[in-house]
Amino acid sequence: MVSVNENYLDMKESYLFSEIAKRVAAFAAGHPEKRILKLGIGDVTLPLVPKVTEALHQAVDEMGAQATFRGYGPEQGYDFLKEAIGNYYKKTGVSLELDEIFVSDGAKSDLGNITDLFSVNNTVLIPDPVYPVYVDTNIMNNRKIVFLSANAQNDFLPLPPAEPADIIYLCSPNNPTGAVYPKELLQKWVDYANHNRAIILFDAAYECFIQSPDLPRSIYQIEGAKTCAIEFCSFSKTAGFTGTRCGYTVVPKALVYKTLRGPELSLNKMWLRRQTTKFNGVPYLVQKGAAAVFTEEGQKQIKESIAYYAQNAKIIAQTLDELGIYYIGGINSPYIWLRCPNRMKSWEFFDYLLNNISVVGTPGAGFGANGEGFFRLTAFGNKENTIEAMQLIKNLLA
Amino acid sequence: MVSVNENYLDMKESYLFSEIAKRVAAFAAGHPEKRILKLGIGDVTLPLVPKVTEALHQAVDEMGAQATFRGYGPEQGYDFLKEAIGNYYKKTGVSLELDEIFVSDGAKSDLGNITDLFSVNNTVLIPDPVYPVYVDTNIMNNRKIVFLSANAQNDFLPLPPAEPADIIYLCSPNNPTGAVYPKELLQKWVDYANHNRAIILFDAAYECFIQSPDLPRSIYQIEGAKTCAIEFCSFSKTAGFTGTRCGYTVVPKALVYKTLRGPELSLNKMWLRRQTTKFNGVPYLVQKGAAAVFTEEGQKQIKESIAYYAQNAKIIAQTLDELGIYYIGGINSPYIWLRCPNRMKSWEFFDYLLNNISVVGTPGAGFGANGEGFFRLTAFGNKENTIEAMQLIKNLLA
Repeated sequence: MVSVNENYLDMKESYLFSEIAKRVAAFAAGHPEKRILKLGIGDVTLPLVPKVTEALHQAVDEMGAQATFRGYGPEQGYDFLKEAIGNYYKKTGVSLELDEIFVSDGAKSDLGNITDLFSVNNTVLIPDPVYPVYVDTNIMNNRKIVFLSANAQNDFLPLPPAEPADIIYLCSPNNPTGAVYPKELLQKWVDYANHNRAIILFDAAYECFIQSPDLPRSIYQIEGAKTCAIEFCSFSKTAGFTGTRCGYTVVPKALVYKTLRGPELSLNKMWLRRQTTKFNGVPYLVQKGAAAVFTEEGQKQIKESIAYYAQNAKIIAQTLDELGIYYIGGINSPYIWLRCPNRMKSWEFFDYLLNNISVVGTPGAGFGANGEGFFRLTAFGNKENTIEAMQLIKNLLA
Repeated sequence: MVSVNENYLDMKESYLFSEIAKRVAAFAAGHPEKRILKLGIGDVTLPLVPKVTEALHQAVDEMGAQATFRGYGPEQGYDFLKEAIGNYYKKTGVSLELDEIFVSDGAKSDLGNITDLFSVNNTVLIPDPVYPVYVDTNIMNNRKIVFLSANAQNDFLPLPPAEPADIIYLCSPNNPTGAVYPKELLQKWVDYANHNRAIILFDAAYECFIQSPDLPRSIYQIEGAKTCAIEFCSFSKTAGFTGTRCGYTVVPKALVYKTLRGPELSLNKMWLRRQTTKFNGVPYLVQKGAAAVFTEEGQKQIKESIAYYAQNAKIIAQTLDELGIYYIGGINSPYIWLRCPNRMKSWEFFDYLLNNISVVGTPGAGFGANGEGFFRLTAFGNKENTIEAMQLIKNLLA
């Protein structure tokens, strides 16, 4: 008789977004005349830029013609895209070999699937509040999880604990808090990981929102990171690919570990083996669209979209400044993480905004215990709605 | 210190296709004047059909316009595609609920990732010769594998063994052998699985090549299959999507299993949880392209492509008939699996064809112990080359 993976019994259902949807629907039903302003959305709203759609159209034509049709591509991505990604890294002073770069269908897939490479006997360190995928994928394999407290005292940038850990998840710019690790703090993590022979799984999905040249966009800008870190990145927020699906993961060749049985195993080779066995690559046309992001024109166009979202973030931040509300994020991040005013709890503040001014955000409590009393606003909406929502918040709370 | 998944030490490198490439390259270097005819390829060669490229272009336009842009879609696929797939199943008399269908980036991904749902304490039954993904993904998790002998005595259609097993891989039409299970033999497998509470992972990636109305295209045409089988299917061979990436997996809701801890677990709900946690869906535009396959015009167009390949298979089969060489497949399958003439071994025959007539096929030994002495030819090449290659084979072996 087949035995199922019983760790699934330990997975909690995430009710966050379904609960938000339920409350918003109930409110809308009761107030059909009200226009609801959504500042909770974690998804992009601007369309693909012209340079990308142009490349996609061209690739579709190639796929429709005998002479240029493409069948199976390399599982780890076409060289034309890996080269473009490598050149993008060079701009931040990071030099990668082509076969250290793996193209994938998104950071979420890779962040989940990377756990395949590790034994279940590892202690996993995860900051709280957190992107739930880090937690759930490790519960699925029954790894021991230790939560690390991110809070207002440490500016939501926790530092390494005294105890060793084996696998560490870091996300910077952070989802949900918007906090960004400066180089000197990230260096402490790299040193900690190297000292303990631990591995850092570095989620850089929001790197494109970093505007300050002093802040690291890649963990490989930190001395020693290539011997302790895997980096995950994505076109989702960079170029509006949430519905088009493309990302990339860097697995340095220096990540080589002794096994109990004796021989060494290279994480780079293991990931290649994993991907060639359980994955068949990203659609050719999507890779062509992604490569267009790195052209001069493509960069110009996506930077306009990013600037649009950054402007929204600024509008949100300015209002909170005026109201004297504590927040982080928003400057080098599309997320603004604020303390609920008047000691309100996260869901209490959610209802307060919804019922009084028809504004929707995301209760911080949904991202972990340390999120209680906090609230996430996002910059991915449209400008007019953002201005209107923040004006309403100002009137309500001033 | 991080401990890696040491099961990767047990993974054998598959040298099959790299070894073929190496020998072909060496031959080409030594005989630059020779045109090499490739009948070993497992990849499609005809371009995407017009109805699909039309839908892709339209979807690209939607993604480039503010009003019609799509961000994150449902991880399990858009309803418009799931409905089209459901209607396709209805044609074979199989009725599925919409949430039993999961759209994915291909059968290979799902066949690999489905192992997430099962405990490592399962015995896995795998026919030999075999598509290597079934074997490798289970070695990665250190499950016990029992090979089932497929051979000329059982027409490469092995029947259930006397001993119980927990997880069973079946592929029909088979890769690499081209053998297709008739209903009465597949019924024996379904009965065996239900009797043992085992699960069948049914790979139906080549169902579109079935021409005989009596042969099952889906395991759910067999009485009792919904309580013991998951089915994997793909647009790769059906509609030339090997480089465009889309497939679908059916996980019936009736697949519910007791756990040792007590509560029951539904594989359908587990797979939904797995996919929503570790996957972010197939690109919207690819799903639009896939949906176009099921339109009346789309069906007409892809059937022309399939007929083209079927014609190639017929050409290969006819030559083998004339030569009196034993083979299976080719009628309801794009693969022809033949016994090497004159008791040659697989690689010996490979070299014989390459060196004498510049024809490339795939040595059966590369697919498992039972493949020794056999050889795979495929129908995915172009017609002129197929005719020429088979004429050369005829002259060589007659």
